[in-house]
Amino acid sequence: MKRWRLAVSSADEAPNTAPILLRGDIVSNLREAARLGYDAIEVHTREDANIDYQAIEQTIQECGAKVCMVITGRLNTEGRCNLMDDAPYIVKAAMDGMKQYINMAQKLHADIVVGWVKGNIPPGGKCDKYMDRLAKNLRELADYGAERNVKLNLEVINRYEVNVFTTAEETMGFLERYKIDNCYVHLDTFHMGIDECDPVAAIQRCKGKLGYIHLADNSRQYPGSGQFEFRKIFEKLEGINYKGYLSVECLPKPNGRIAAERAAIFLNSLLE
Amino acid sequence: MKRWRLAVSSADEAPNTAPILLRGDIVSNLREAARLGYDAIEVHTREDANIDYQAIEQTIQECGAKVCMVITGRLNTEGRCNLMDDAPYIVKAAMDGMKQYINMAQKLHADIVVGWVKGNIPPGGKCDKYMDRLAKNLRELADYGAERNVKLNLEVINRYEVNVFTTAEETMGFLERYKIDNCYVHLDTFHMGIDECDPVAAIQRCKGKLGYIHLADNSRQYPGSGQFEFRKIFEKLEGINYKGYLSVECLPKPNGRIAAERAAIFLNSLLE
Amino acid sequence: MKRWRLAVSSADEAPNTAPILLRGDIVSNLREAARLGYDAIEVHTREDANIDYQAIEQTIQECGAKVCMVITGRLNTEGRCNLMDDAPYIVKAAMDGMKQYINMAQKLHADIVVGWVKGNIPPGGKCDKYMDRLAKNLRELADYGAERNVKLNLEVINRYEVNVFTTAEETMGFLERYKIDNCYVHLDTFHMGIDECDPVAAIQRCKGKLGYIHLADNSRQYPGSGQFEFRKIFEKLEGINYKGYLSVECLPKPNGRIAAERAAIFLNSLLE
Amino acid sequence: MKRWRLAVSSADEAPNTAPILLRGDIVSNLREAARLGYDAIEVHTREDANIDYQAIEQTIQECGAKVCMVITGRLNTEGRCNLMDDAPYIVKAAMDGMKQYINMAQKLHADIVVGWVKGNIPPGGKCDKYMDRLAKNLRELADYGAERNVKLNLEVINRYEVNVFTTAEETMGFLERYKIDNCYVHLDTFHMGIDECDPVAAIQRCKGKLGYIHLADNSRQYPGSGQFEFRKIFEKLEGINYKGYLSVECLPKPNGRIAAERAAIFLNSLLE
Repeated sequence: MKRWRLAVSSADEAPNTAPILLRGDIVSNLREAARLGYDAIEVHTREDANIDYQAIEQTIQECGAKVCMVITGRLNTEGRCNLMDDAPYIVKAAMDGMKQYINMAQKLHADIVVGWVKGNIPPGGKCDKYMDRLAKNLRELADYGAERNVKLNLEVINRYEVNVFTTAEETMGFLERYKIDNCYVHLDTFHMGIDECDPVAAIQRCKGKLGYIHLADNSRQYPGSGQFEFRKIFEKLEGINYKGYLSVECLPKPNGRIAAERAAIFLNSLLE
Repeated sequence: MKRWRLAVSSADEAPNTAPILLRGDIVSNLREAARLGYDAIEVHTREDANIDYQAIEQTIQECGAKVCMVITGRLNTEGRCNLMDDAPYIVKAAMDGMKQYINMAQKLHADIVVGWVKGNIPPGGKCDKYMDRLAKNLRELADYGAERNVKLNLEVINRYEVNVFTTAEETMGFLERYKIDNCYVHLDTFHMGIDECDPVAAIQRCKGKLGYIHLADNSRQYPGSGQFEFRKIFEKLEGINYKGYLSVECLPKPNGRIAAERAAIFLNSLLE
Repeated sequence: MKRWRLAVSSADEAPNTAPILLRGDIVSNLREAARLGYDAIEVHTREDANIDYQAIEQTIQECGAKVCMVITGRLNTEGRCNLMDDAPYIVKAAMDGMKQYINMAQKLHADIVVGWVKGNIPPGGKCDKYMDRLAKNLRELADYGAERNVKLNLEVINRYEVNVFTTAEETMGFLERYKIDNCYVHLDTFHMGIDECDPVAAIQRCKGKLGYIHLADNSRQYPGSGQFEFRKIFEKLEGINYKGYLSVECLPKPNGRIAAERAAIFLNSLLE
Repeated sequence: MKRWRLAVSSADEAPNTAPILLRGDIVSNLREAARLGYDAIEVHTREDANIDYQAIEQTIQECGAKVCMVITGRLNTEGRCNLMDDAPYIVKAAMDGMKQYINMAQKLHADIVVGWVKGNIPPGGKCDKYMDRLAKNLRELADYGAERNVKLNLEVINRYEVNVFTTAEETMGFLERYKIDNCYVHLDTFHMGIDECDPVAAIQRCKGKLGYIHLADNSRQYPGSGQFEFRKIFEKLEGINYKGYLSVECLPKPNGRIAAERAAIFLNSLLE
């Protein structure tokens, strides 16, 4: 089996109900990730976070772990911004915030995830109108990212959390319809467990466009805690020649460190 | 009786409860308006709509109907912007959006209506404070419009829908107090039916400042469907030397085309 | 012209934006109504109001004016109850409150109006489901009223205020479909001005079932203040042999007493 | 493998996003269930629904299918009632409504499910306080049911929908702590897929107390549409000597009838 690089979710702070395993500043999370055998961290943070890029650069050189991805959900969950809103001041703030995230990712040599911040279609809203608006805004951001060598990854999230991009088919259909360069699909095994009849077929659907993948088991605990057949997932990832990270984004049960350790052991055993 | 030019309301899409008669893109609505005997359409749209000005220009030359007015209400009803808000980011977005509308009107050789987007005084709010703010913003927009040969028309709307500018007296009093050039009054017979004891006196009050008028009968169906005495309205419009359009903005009952046809027949019979 | 008895709206208190002409306790309002030439008052009040029935009885004998109608809207606007709600505790409280109103009306030898308290269909709600529930509850109340010699009058209100029973046609259709005895229609000239193409036809539609009528002119000021042709209204009321009150429910402009005086003068001049 | 009886979900009406396969009145749903090879229907309905018990009894004798379960969720989702609310009028209405459901189940010789109507702990609420209240109310209802030969089944629902009774462990712990007779656990394979690391262990945990089970595949489509290993589920159900129904409650994809047919074929092939 191909030996993908492993990443682990991190944030400065998060409730225990959030799928974040490492908590603390980026420097200490990088060190902890390296110690636990991970190649990188994904960083959940606000768009205007104070980041000591020099200290991070030095830590990366020291410990070997890097930042692979900047996660932008908090611009929505805390910042109440989204990219398809009817109100122009909300869209403008969303665009400004996303550009801040892209600048951040550029300095960290990372890419970004576009998840909750895309927004939801309001009750009774006509789908096309909101997709047109989202596509227009994503295209601008994707171009902005391309100039800075930062890729966008559209996260497919289960239907309990969002009402747009809940399946691989829907998300790939969007990218094919609007032809947005520098924009990829981001799958998550937990979300696929709720919305895809066949997660392996979902991965196949994203061939050539899969930019990132989250790993968690069926109850969103660490991979290996439940029922998912990760071997089949990995065989298909190899089949479509996926080259990105395998990122463990799962609930911190029994706690973040133990979950990260168990995930690493489980994944390494499968990937050998 | 003077033979005013006739206009009809149009939008790309609208629910059946909205007073819109023609639905579709501007090009097809222009053709339909011409076919039904109208001289122009008023266009209800968003400030950032994709508009093919070249195709419109060509259609105008072919069919004879033009765009007389750009209606800005959706910047408020969808875009949640208004010109007297306490929040500066909302006022800023409203001003930006209104300038987009003025640019659009300039390219279409049309004027604009300022209706819902003016906003409402919040519960317990002091009237003068909000009127001062509105006047300041309208003056800036009116100047911006004057430079582009686009007039502003303040719509008088019934008190069930708004709490500012519900009568001709109130709206004329505002214009006289703040002395805003390039800003006119826009009356609507349906709204006057609810808020003016005497619609004819209301028209007289706006002498020299009446920029636009909407026609609908008492239940907001097409002119001629109900109880209003349009002959008296038209005699007074002639009396104050009104030179603008008579625009049919009414409910699409039994449907938009039939309502537009019946309105045209009724109005032509009165105006002969 | 038939000489109907005249009534005037009253309440213990109300804002100036409410169509209430007499304000104060029932005893003083009865005296004021008699002084102004009215035969009765309609009373807007809460279902559990403290009412001195003995004092009222004595005042009625002294001044000649009586209470013709108990208006129940405050059980909804203040009490947040309605007769078609999905929540059983709200419907139960609405039924309890309406029975209190019927008991009150019985003691006052009056009937009741069912207006806002009927409720509204929630967004996306299926009409039949709510009409079935409303009919079941109204039937129980109508039977309760019949045992106490109290009639129910369903008010037709304009579509800006409610989304059920906005036209005579809709309301008569409901009564014909569900066959509820002891339940009548209550029209209002102001509301008809907004929702009926032809108010005279609306009155005709209610023949045999018209239980009550409110008079106000087109801007909801006193009859005679505006454009309505009350003579045609009265001719049709005579034509269908209407025997109820003509009740003046209008805005207190310039104030309640003057509006009541002017209405009485206008109506008496027409009815002579 | 043991041959359990099969049931299918039904309602008079439901949106396509609800896991309801048969839509229509109970009589026609019974006939359709029998035709599709099911032994029973579960009925989702309001507590005060008009039910023709005689016609249902006759249909059961004619077609062989019966009503196995009354589902009470609409008392919560529509009726806004729950059994742990801080407001006494809401708890009272919930208790009244649940007794109506138990009376209905008695007449239908069915049991009831207690799902959403149990309520949720409000933000910041102390768990014990709400569990004590819920237990007290459930005990009263369970006794009321016992007198009428109607069992209560507490549904375990995934954490996206409720915040109480999301796992078998939590629900069994509640029953063991409060020792409520005549009250059982109701599992659902779709919900277990989101909240149980090991659904088979969850079934084992409910040994002796499992009263009902819903079947749907991982994306809530019909059993057999996805990834779940139903054979292991059924082996464990046999292992704990489960005697209740296997009820198909899943999304109507591609439509209700086809989903019910495919589920029946799949289950029959496994249970042979």
